[in-house]
Amino acid sequence: MTDNVLEQSSPNVPPSEEVWVRRASERASYDADAVNEVVDSAVVAHVGTVRDGKPVVIPMFVVRDGDHLLLHGAPAAGVIRRGKGVDVCVTMTLLDGLVLARSGFHHSLNYRSAVVIGVAEPVEGEVEKEQALELFMERLVPTRQADLRPTTEKEIRGTGVLKVSLAQASVKVRSGPPVDDEEDYEHGMWAGVVPVTTTFGEPEADPRLNDGIELPANVRAIVGRVL
Amino acid sequence: MTDNVLEQSSPNVPPSEEVWVRRASERASYDADAVNEVVDSAVVAHVGTVRDGKPVVIPMFVVRDGDHLLLHGAPAAGVIRRGKGVDVCVTMTLLDGLVLARSGFHHSLNYRSAVVIGVAEPVEGEVEKEQALELFMERLVPTRQADLRPTTEKEIRGTGVLKVSLAQASVKVRSGPPVDDEEDYEHGMWAGVVPVTTTFGEPEADPRLNDGIELPANVRAIVGRVL
Repeated sequence: MTDNVLEQSSPNVPPSEEVWVRRASERASYDADAVNEVVDSAVVAHVGTVRDGKPVVIPMFVVRDGDHLLLHGAPAAGVIRRGKGVDVCVTMTLLDGLVLARSGFHHSLNYRSAVVIGVAEPVEGEVEKEQALELFMERLVPTRQADLRPTTEKEIRGTGVLKVSLAQASVKVRSGPPVDDEEDYEHGMWAGVVPVTTTFGEPEADPRLNDGIELPANVRAIVGRVL
Repeated sequence: MTDNVLEQSSPNVPPSEEVWVRRASERASYDADAVNEVVDSAVVAHVGTVRDGKPVVIPMFVVRDGDHLLLHGAPAAGVIRRGKGVDVCVTMTLLDGLVLARSGFHHSLNYRSAVVIGVAEPVEGEVEKEQALELFMERLVPTRQADLRPTTEKEIRGTGVLKVSLAQASVKVRSGPPVDDEEDYEHGMWAGVVPVTTTFGEPEADPRLNDGIELPANVRAIVGRVL
Protein backbone atom coordinates (compact mmCIF):
# COMPACT_ATOMS: atom_id res chain seq x y z
CA MET A 1 0.00 0.00 0.00
CA THR A 2 1.16 3.53 -0.64
CA ASP A 3 0.40 6.92 0.78
CA ASN A 4 -2.20 7.29 -1.94
CA VAL A 5 -4.49 5.24 0.25
CA LEU A 6 -4.68 8.29 2.49
CA GLU A 7 -5.97 10.43 -0.35
CA GLN A 8 -8.78 8.23 -1.58
CA SER A 9 -12.26 9.60 -1.09
CA SER A 10 -13.25 6.51 0.87
CA PRO A 11 -15.62 7.02 3.81
CA ASN A 12 -12.96 5.37 5.95
CA VAL A 13 -9.78 7.32 5.34
CA PRO A 14 -7.32 7.90 8.18
CA PRO A 15 -6.75 11.60 8.99
CA SER A 16 -2.96 11.07 8.90
CA GLU A 17 -0.39 8.40 8.19
CA GLU A 18 0.44 8.24 11.90
CA VAL A 19 -3.01 7.08 12.92
CA TRP A 20 -3.51 4.78 9.95
CA VAL A 21 -4.39 1.22 11.05
CA ARG A 22 -2.37 -1.01 8.75
CA ARG A 23 -3.16 -4.37 10.32
CA ALA A 24 -6.68 -5.85 9.82
CA SER A 25 -7.67 -2.50 8.37
CA GLU A 26 -11.14 -3.79 7.45
CA ARG A 27 -11.91 -3.59 11.18
CA ALA A 28 -10.75 0.01 11.46
CA SER A 29 -12.63 3.29 11.35
CA TYR A 30 -11.67 6.94 11.69
CA ASP A 31 -15.23 8.17 12.00
CA ALA A 32 -15.78 10.58 14.92
CA ASP A 33 -19.03 8.91 16.00
CA ALA A 34 -17.31 5.52 16.15
CA VAL A 35 -14.43 7.01 18.15
CA ASN A 36 -16.79 8.81 20.53
CA GLU A 37 -18.80 5.65 21.15
CA VAL A 38 -15.73 3.76 22.34
CA VAL A 39 -14.40 6.69 24.41
CA ASP A 40 -17.78 7.16 26.06
CA SER A 41 -17.86 3.49 27.07
CA ALA A 42 -14.40 3.58 28.62
CA VAL A 43 -13.62 4.60 32.21
CA VAL A 44 -9.91 3.82 32.16
CA ALA A 45 -7.53 4.82 29.37
CA HIS A 46 -3.99 3.53 28.98
CA VAL A 47 -1.78 6.54 28.41
CA GLY A 48 1.59 6.04 26.73
CA THR A 49 4.44 8.53 26.91
CA VAL A 50 8.16 8.32 26.23
CA ARG A 51 10.53 8.75 29.17
CA ASP A 52 14.29 8.69 28.53
CA GLY A 53 13.57 7.10 25.16
CA LYS A 54 11.54 4.27 26.65
CA PRO A 55 7.79 3.68 26.69
CA VAL A 56 5.71 4.22 29.82
CA VAL A 57 2.03 3.21 29.94
CA ILE A 58 -0.18 4.12 32.88
CA PRO A 59 -3.93 3.80 33.44
CA MET A 60 -5.85 7.06 33.87
CA PHE A 61 -9.48 7.99 34.38
CA VAL A 62 -10.79 9.30 31.03
CA VAL A 63 -13.81 11.29 29.94
CA ARG A 64 -14.71 12.95 26.66
CA ASP A 65 -15.23 16.71 26.41
CA GLY A 66 -16.62 17.22 22.90
CA ASP A 67 -13.76 16.64 20.50
CA HIS A 68 -11.13 16.22 23.23
CA LEU A 69 -10.19 13.62 25.80
CA LEU A 70 -9.70 14.65 29.42
CA LEU A 71 -7.35 12.58 31.58
CA HIS A 72 -7.41 12.80 35.38
CA GLY A 73 -4.53 12.40 37.77
CA ALA A 74 -2.56 13.89 40.63
CA PRO A 75 -0.43 16.92 39.72
CA ALA A 76 2.66 15.06 41.01
CA ALA A 77 2.06 12.01 38.79
CA GLY A 78 4.78 11.63 36.17
CA VAL A 79 2.58 11.92 33.12
CA ILE A 80 0.89 15.05 34.47
CA ARG A 81 4.24 16.66 35.28
CA ARG A 82 5.57 15.70 31.84
CA GLY A 83 2.22 16.58 30.25
CA LYS A 84 3.08 20.10 29.01
CA GLY A 85 2.99 19.60 25.28
CA VAL A 86 4.09 15.99 25.49
CA ASP A 87 3.38 13.36 22.83
CA VAL A 88 0.92 10.78 24.07
CA CYS A 89 -0.87 7.74 22.70
CA VAL A 90 -4.11 7.12 24.58
CA THR A 91 -5.72 3.73 24.07
CA MET A 92 -9.08 2.58 25.40
CA THR A 93 -10.21 -1.04 25.03
CA LEU A 94 -13.50 -2.71 25.89
CA LEU A 95 -13.39 -6.51 25.89
CA ASP A 96 -16.69 -7.88 24.55
CA GLY A 97 -16.21 -11.61 24.14
CA LEU A 98 -14.13 -14.74 23.75
CA VAL A 99 -14.44 -16.02 20.19
CA LEU A 100 -14.27 -19.82 20.24
CA ALA A 101 -13.58 -21.17 16.77
CA ARG A 102 -13.25 -24.69 15.35
CA SER A 103 -9.45 -24.42 15.16
CA GLY A 104 -7.00 -22.93 17.63
CA PHE A 105 -5.79 -20.51 14.98
CA HIS A 106 -9.16 -18.80 14.48
CA HIS A 107 -9.86 -18.22 18.17
CA SER A 108 -10.06 -14.51 18.86
CA LEU A 109 -11.40 -11.79 21.09
CA ASN A 110 -14.32 -9.49 20.42
CA TYR A 111 -13.44 -5.95 21.45
CA ARG A 112 -13.83 -2.25 20.78
CA SER A 113 -10.64 -0.23 20.89
CA ALA A 114 -9.81 3.42 20.25
CA VAL A 115 -6.30 4.77 19.77
CA VAL A 116 -5.75 8.52 20.04
CA ILE A 117 -2.44 10.10 19.07
CA GLY A 118 -1.81 13.65 20.14
CA VAL A 119 -0.13 16.17 22.36
CA ALA A 120 -1.28 16.38 25.96
CA GLU A 121 -1.74 19.84 27.39
CA PRO A 122 -2.60 20.56 31.02
CA VAL A 123 -5.96 22.15 31.74
CA GLU A 124 -4.86 25.12 33.80
CA GLY A 125 -7.47 27.84 34.21
CA GLU A 126 -9.45 27.41 37.42
CA VAL A 127 -12.84 27.70 35.71
CA GLU A 128 -11.84 25.37 32.90
CA LYS A 129 -10.43 22.85 35.36
CA GLU A 130 -13.54 22.98 37.54
CA GLN A 131 -15.68 22.29 34.46
CA ALA A 132 -13.40 19.38 33.58
CA LEU A 133 -13.72 17.92 37.08
CA GLU A 134 -17.50 18.18 36.79
CA LEU A 135 -17.34 16.09 33.60
CA PHE A 136 -15.43 13.38 35.47
CA MET A 137 -18.09 13.42 38.21
CA GLU A 138 -20.85 13.27 35.61
CA ARG A 139 -19.12 10.20 34.13
CA LEU A 140 -19.18 8.46 37.54
CA VAL A 141 -22.70 9.40 38.64
CA PRO A 142 -24.73 11.85 36.56
CA THR A 143 -26.09 14.79 38.65
CA ARG A 144 -24.07 13.83 41.78
CA GLN A 145 -22.00 17.05 41.67
CA ALA A 146 -25.07 19.08 42.70
CA ASP A 147 -25.37 17.03 45.92
CA LEU A 148 -21.79 17.66 47.04
CA ARG A 149 -20.26 20.57 48.92
CA PRO A 150 -18.43 23.00 46.59
CA THR A 151 -14.92 21.99 45.58
CA THR A 152 -12.32 24.29 47.16
CA GLU A 153 -9.69 26.21 45.21
CA LYS A 154 -7.01 24.13 46.92
CA GLU A 155 -8.70 20.91 45.80
CA ILE A 156 -8.92 22.20 42.23
CA ARG A 157 -5.21 23.07 42.29
CA GLY A 158 -4.56 19.64 43.78
CA THR A 159 -5.93 17.78 40.77
CA GLY A 160 -4.20 17.45 37.43
CA VAL A 161 -6.16 17.25 34.20
CA LEU A 162 -4.69 16.71 30.75
CA LYS A 163 -6.45 17.46 27.49
CA VAL A 164 -5.81 15.65 24.19
CA SER A 165 -7.49 16.39 20.86
CA LEU A 166 -9.48 13.58 19.25
CA ALA A 167 -8.50 14.77 15.76
CA GLN A 168 -6.04 11.88 15.32
CA ALA A 169 -7.99 8.84 16.38
CA SER A 170 -8.82 5.40 15.08
CA VAL A 171 -11.21 2.71 16.21
CA LYS A 172 -10.90 -1.01 15.74
CA VAL A 173 -13.77 -3.39 16.42
CA ARG A 174 -14.14 -7.12 16.20
CA SER A 175 -17.62 -8.50 16.75
CA GLY A 176 -19.71 -11.49 15.83
CA PRO A 177 -19.10 -15.23 15.56
CA PRO A 178 -15.83 -16.97 14.68
CA VAL A 179 -14.72 -17.08 11.06
CA ASP A 180 -13.39 -20.57 10.40
CA ASP A 181 -11.70 -22.23 7.47
CA GLU A 182 -14.48 -23.56 5.24
CA GLU A 183 -13.45 -27.20 5.68
CA ASP A 184 -13.57 -26.87 9.48
CA TYR A 185 -17.31 -26.07 9.61
CA GLU A 186 -17.99 -29.79 9.30
CA HIS A 187 -16.14 -30.57 12.54
CA GLY A 188 -18.36 -31.67 15.39
CA MET A 189 -16.97 -28.96 17.63
CA TRP A 190 -19.01 -26.33 19.47
CA ALA A 191 -18.16 -22.83 18.25
CA GLY A 192 -19.47 -19.44 19.20
CA VAL A 193 -18.88 -16.48 21.47
CA VAL A 194 -18.72 -16.23 25.25
CA PRO A 195 -19.75 -12.62 25.90
CA VAL A 196 -17.73 -10.58 28.37
CA THR A 197 -19.64 -7.82 30.10
CA THR A 198 -18.52 -5.16 32.53
CA THR A 199 -21.30 -3.86 34.77
CA PHE A 200 -21.90 -1.59 37.72
CA GLY A 201 -23.09 -3.70 40.66
CA GLU A 202 -24.96 -3.25 43.92
CA PRO A 203 -23.56 -0.25 45.86
CA GLU A 204 -21.67 -0.94 49.10
CA ALA A 205 -22.19 1.78 51.70
CA ASP A 206 -19.12 3.26 53.41
CA PRO A 207 -18.83 1.59 56.87
CA ARG A 208 -18.57 5.13 58.27
CA LEU A 209 -21.85 6.23 56.68
CA ASN A 210 -24.06 8.02 59.20
CA ASP A 211 -27.31 6.30 60.17
CA GLY A 212 -30.39 7.03 58.14
CA ILE A 213 -28.71 8.03 54.89
CA GLU A 214 -30.42 6.24 52.02
CA LEU A 215 -28.87 5.38 48.67
CA PRO A 216 -29.76 8.31 46.40
CA ALA A 217 -31.70 7.79 43.19
CA ASN A 218 -28.84 9.03 41.01
CA VAL A 219 -26.51 6.31 42.33
CA ARG A 220 -29.26 3.69 42.13
CA ALA A 221 -29.76 4.70 38.48
CA ILE A 222 -26.32 3.47 37.38
CA VAL A 223 -26.64 0.02 38.97
CA GLY A 224 -26.74 -2.67 36.31
CA ARG A 225 -25.38 -0.34 33.64
CA VAL A 226 -23.03 -2.04 31.17
CA LEU A 227 -19.83 -0.41 29.90
CA MET B 1 13.27 10.66 48.45
CA THR B 2 16.63 9.46 47.27
CA ASP B 3 17.94 6.37 45.57
CA ASN B 4 18.60 4.95 49.01
CA VAL B 5 14.96 4.00 49.10
CA LEU B 6 15.85 1.29 46.60
CA GLU B 7 18.40 -0.18 48.96
CA GLN B 8 16.28 -0.41 52.08
CA SER B 9 15.50 -3.92 53.26
CA SER B 10 11.79 -3.18 53.15
CA PRO B 11 9.51 -6.03 52.01
CA ASN B 12 8.28 -3.67 49.35
CA VAL B 13 11.36 -2.50 47.52
CA PRO B 14 11.29 -1.90 43.76
CA PRO B 15 13.70 -4.10 41.80
CA SER B 16 15.02 -1.06 39.91
CA GLU B 17 14.64 2.67 39.77
CA GLU B 18 12.83 2.32 36.43
CA VAL B 19 9.94 0.37 37.85
CA TRP B 20 9.71 2.34 41.11
CA VAL B 21 6.21 3.70 41.71
CA ARG B 22 6.80 7.23 42.99
CA ARG B 23 3.21 8.39 43.13
CA ALA B 24 0.89 7.03 45.86
CA SER B 25 3.63 4.53 46.66
CA GLU B 26 1.72 3.19 49.65
CA ARG B 27 -0.54 1.48 47.11
CA ALA B 28 2.37 -0.14 45.25
CA SER B 29 3.96 -3.57 45.49
CA TYR B 30 6.77 -5.37 43.70
CA ASP B 31 5.90 -8.77 45.10
CA ALA B 32 5.76 -11.53 42.45
CA ASP B 33 2.55 -13.06 43.85
CA ALA B 34 0.82 -9.68 43.70
CA VAL B 35 2.03 -9.14 40.13
CA ASN B 36 0.97 -12.65 39.08
CA GLU B 37 -2.49 -12.19 40.55
CA VAL B 38 -3.16 -9.10 38.43
CA VAL B 39 -1.65 -10.62 35.28
CA ASP B 40 -3.71 -13.80 35.71
CA SER B 41 -6.91 -11.75 35.97
CA ALA B 42 -6.19 -9.75 32.82
CA VAL B 43 -7.11 -10.86 29.30
CA VAL B 44 -6.03 -7.70 27.49
CA ALA B 45 -2.73 -5.89 28.09
CA HIS B 46 -1.88 -2.44 26.79
CA VAL B 47 1.53 -2.66 25.18
CA GLY B 48 3.56 0.51 24.78
CA THR B 49 6.47 0.87 22.38
CA VAL B 50 8.33 3.83 20.92
CA ARG B 51 8.04 4.41 17.16
CA ASP B 52 9.97 7.29 15.60
CA GLY B 53 10.41 8.74 19.08
CA LYS B 54 6.68 8.73 19.82
CA PRO B 55 4.62 6.46 22.03
CA VAL B 56 2.35 3.77 20.57
CA VAL B 57 -0.03 1.78 22.79
CA ILE B 58 -1.97 -1.18 21.44
CA PRO B 59 -4.14 -3.79 23.17
CA MET B 60 -2.92 -7.38 23.01
CA PHE B 61 -4.12 -10.72 24.36
CA VAL B 62 -1.89 -11.56 27.35
CA VAL B 63 -1.18 -14.70 29.34
CA ARG B 64 1.42 -15.52 31.96
CA ASP B 65 3.99 -18.27 31.43
CA GLY B 66 5.70 -18.63 34.80
CA ASP B 67 7.87 -15.55 35.27
CA HIS B 68 7.18 -14.16 31.78
CA LEU B 69 4.33 -12.51 29.95
CA LEU B 70 3.27 -13.82 26.55
CA LEU B 71 1.63 -11.40 24.11
CA HIS B 72 -0.35 -12.61 21.11
CA GLY B 73 -0.70 -10.94 17.74
CA ALA B 74 -0.38 -11.28 14.00
CA PRO B 75 3.20 -11.44 12.70
CA ALA B 76 2.50 -8.44 10.47
CA ALA B 77 1.32 -6.28 13.38
CA GLY B 78 3.70 -3.39 14.03
CA VAL B 79 4.62 -4.30 17.58
CA ILE B 80 5.37 -7.90 16.61
CA ARG B 81 7.53 -6.78 13.67
CA ARG B 82 9.32 -4.27 15.91
CA GLY B 83 9.38 -6.80 18.77
CA LYS B 84 12.91 -8.16 18.31
CA GLY B 85 14.58 -6.89 21.43
CA VAL B 86 12.40 -3.82 21.65
CA ASP B 87 11.70 -1.90 24.85
CA VAL B 88 8.10 -2.30 25.95
CA CYS B 89 5.93 -1.23 28.83
CA VAL B 90 3.04 -3.65 29.33
CA THR B 91 0.22 -2.46 31.55
CA MET B 92 -2.80 -4.44 32.68
CA THR B 93 -5.66 -2.82 34.59
CA LEU B 94 -8.76 -4.29 36.17
CA LEU B 95 -11.39 -1.75 37.17
CA ASP B 96 -13.07 -2.82 40.41
CA GLY B 97 -15.28 0.04 41.48
CA LEU B 98 -16.38 3.65 41.50
CA VAL B 99 -15.45 5.26 44.82
CA LEU B 100 -18.10 7.81 45.73
CA ALA B 101 -16.83 10.14 48.45
CA ARG B 102 -18.40 13.05 50.34
CA SER B 103 -16.46 15.63 48.32
CA GLY B 104 -15.71 15.72 44.63
CA PHE B 105 -11.99 15.74 45.38
CA HIS B 106 -11.96 12.36 47.15
CA HIS B 107 -13.90 10.49 44.48
CA SER B 108 -11.73 7.76 43.04
CA LEU B 109 -11.62 4.41 41.27
CA ASN B 110 -10.88 1.02 42.79
CA TYR B 111 -8.56 -0.94 40.53
CA ARG B 112 -5.73 -3.43 40.26
CA SER B 113 -2.97 -2.51 37.84
CA ALA B 114 0.33 -4.12 36.90
CA VAL B 115 3.09 -2.35 34.96
CA VAL B 116 5.84 -4.47 33.42
CA ILE B 117 8.94 -2.89 31.92
CA GLY B 118 11.14 -5.03 29.76
CA VAL B 119 12.43 -6.08 26.40
CA ALA B 120 10.07 -8.02 24.14
CA GLU B 121 11.56 -10.98 22.31
CA PRO B 122 9.68 -13.05 19.74
CA VAL B 123 8.94 -16.66 20.59
CA GLU B 124 10.39 -18.35 17.53
CA GLY B 125 10.95 -22.09 17.92
CA GLU B 126 8.00 -24.08 16.58
CA VAL B 127 7.68 -26.22 19.73
CA GLU B 128 8.03 -23.24 22.04
CA LYS B 129 5.49 -21.28 20.01
CA GLU B 130 3.01 -24.14 19.98
CA GLN B 131 3.30 -24.40 23.78
CA ALA B 132 2.72 -20.65 24.03
CA LEU B 133 -0.40 -20.90 21.86
CA GLU B 134 -1.70 -23.66 24.10
CA LEU B 135 -1.34 -21.34 27.10
CA PHE B 136 -3.47 -18.74 25.31
CA MET B 137 -6.12 -21.38 24.61
CA GLU B 138 -5.98 -22.56 28.24
CA ARG B 139 -6.59 -18.92 29.28
CA LEU B 140 -9.74 -18.76 27.12
CA VAL B 141 -11.22 -22.17 27.93
CA PRO B 142 -9.20 -24.63 30.01
CA THR B 143 -8.86 -28.09 28.32
CA ARG B 144 -10.39 -26.90 25.02
CA GLN B 145 -7.15 -27.48 23.07
CA ALA B 146 -7.63 -31.24 23.37
CA ASP B 147 -11.00 -31.01 21.58
CA LEU B 148 -9.60 -29.18 18.55
CA ARG B 149 -7.92 -30.49 15.41
CA PRO B 150 -4.12 -30.10 15.56
CA THR B 151 -2.75 -26.69 14.70
CA THR B 152 -0.85 -26.76 11.39
CA GLU B 153 2.74 -25.59 10.93
CA LYS B 154 1.47 -22.82 8.68
CA GLU B 155 -0.93 -21.63 11.39
CA ILE B 156 1.87 -21.64 13.97
CA ARG B 157 4.07 -19.57 11.63
CA GLY B 158 1.07 -17.29 11.03
CA THR B 159 0.83 -16.26 14.67
CA GLY B 160 3.22 -13.90 16.44
CA VAL B 161 4.01 -14.30 20.12
CA LEU B 162 6.17 -11.94 22.17
CA LYS B 163 7.76 -12.81 25.51
CA VAL B 164 8.57 -10.29 28.24
CA SER B 165 10.23 -11.04 31.58
CA LEU B 166 8.25 -10.20 34.72
CA ALA B 167 11.45 -9.31 36.60
CA GLN B 168 10.71 -5.56 36.37
CA ALA B 169 7.11 -5.27 37.46
CA SER B 170 5.03 -3.27 39.87
CA VAL B 171 1.46 -3.53 41.04
CA LYS B 172 -0.79 -0.75 42.25
CA VAL B 173 -4.09 -1.45 43.95
CA ARG B 174 -6.79 0.78 45.37
CA SER B 175 -9.59 -0.94 47.23
CA GLY B 176 -12.11 -0.22 49.93
CA PRO B 177 -14.35 2.71 50.83
CA PRO B 178 -13.67 6.40 50.19
CA VAL B 179 -11.27 8.25 52.45
CA ASP B 180 -12.79 11.63 53.18
CA ASP B 181 -11.63 14.72 55.00
CA GLU B 182 -12.54 14.21 58.66
CA GLU B 183 -14.94 17.18 58.74
CA ASP B 184 -16.86 15.85 55.72
CA TYR B 185 -17.97 12.64 57.47
CA GLU B 186 -20.74 14.66 59.11
CA HIS B 187 -22.29 15.58 55.76
CA GLY B 188 -25.62 13.94 55.03
CA MET B 189 -24.31 12.54 51.76
CA TRP B 190 -24.36 8.88 50.75
CA ALA B 191 -20.83 7.57 50.28
CA GLY B 192 -19.52 4.16 49.33
CA VAL B 193 -18.41 2.05 46.41
CA VAL B 194 -20.25 0.98 43.27
CA PRO B 195 -18.51 -2.30 42.34
CA VAL B 196 -17.53 -2.85 38.72
CA THR B 197 -17.38 -6.48 37.66
CA THR B 198 -16.35 -8.08 34.41
CA THR B 199 -17.88 -11.50 33.83
CA PHE B 200 -18.16 -14.22 31.22
CA GLY B 201 -21.80 -14.49 30.15
CA GLU B 202 -24.11 -17.00 28.50
CA PRO B 203 -22.44 -18.48 25.37
CA GLU B 204 -23.90 -17.59 21.97
CA ALA B 205 -23.63 -20.43 19.47
CA ASP B 206 -22.21 -19.68 16.02
CA PRO B 207 -25.18 -19.34 13.61
CA ARG B 208 -23.34 -21.82 11.37
CA LEU B 209 -23.09 -24.43 14.15
CA ASN B 210 -24.19 -27.86 12.90
CA ASP B 211 -27.36 -29.30 14.40
CA GLY B 212 -27.07 -31.41 17.49
CA ILE B 213 -23.81 -29.99 18.85
CA GLU B 214 -24.24 -29.25 22.55
CA LEU B 215 -22.32 -26.67 24.55
CA PRO B 216 -19.37 -28.60 26.03
CA ALA B 217 -18.80 -28.76 29.78
CA ASN B 218 -15.46 -26.93 29.57
CA VAL B 219 -17.11 -23.88 27.99
CA ARG B 220 -20.07 -24.09 30.39
CA ALA B 221 -17.54 -24.09 33.25
CA ILE B 222 -16.31 -20.54 32.56
CA VAL B 223 -19.79 -18.98 32.42
CA GLY B 224 -20.25 -16.58 35.29
CA ARG B 225 -16.54 -16.39 36.00
CA VAL B 226 -15.36 -12.95 37.13
CA LEU B 227 -12.11 -11.40 35.90
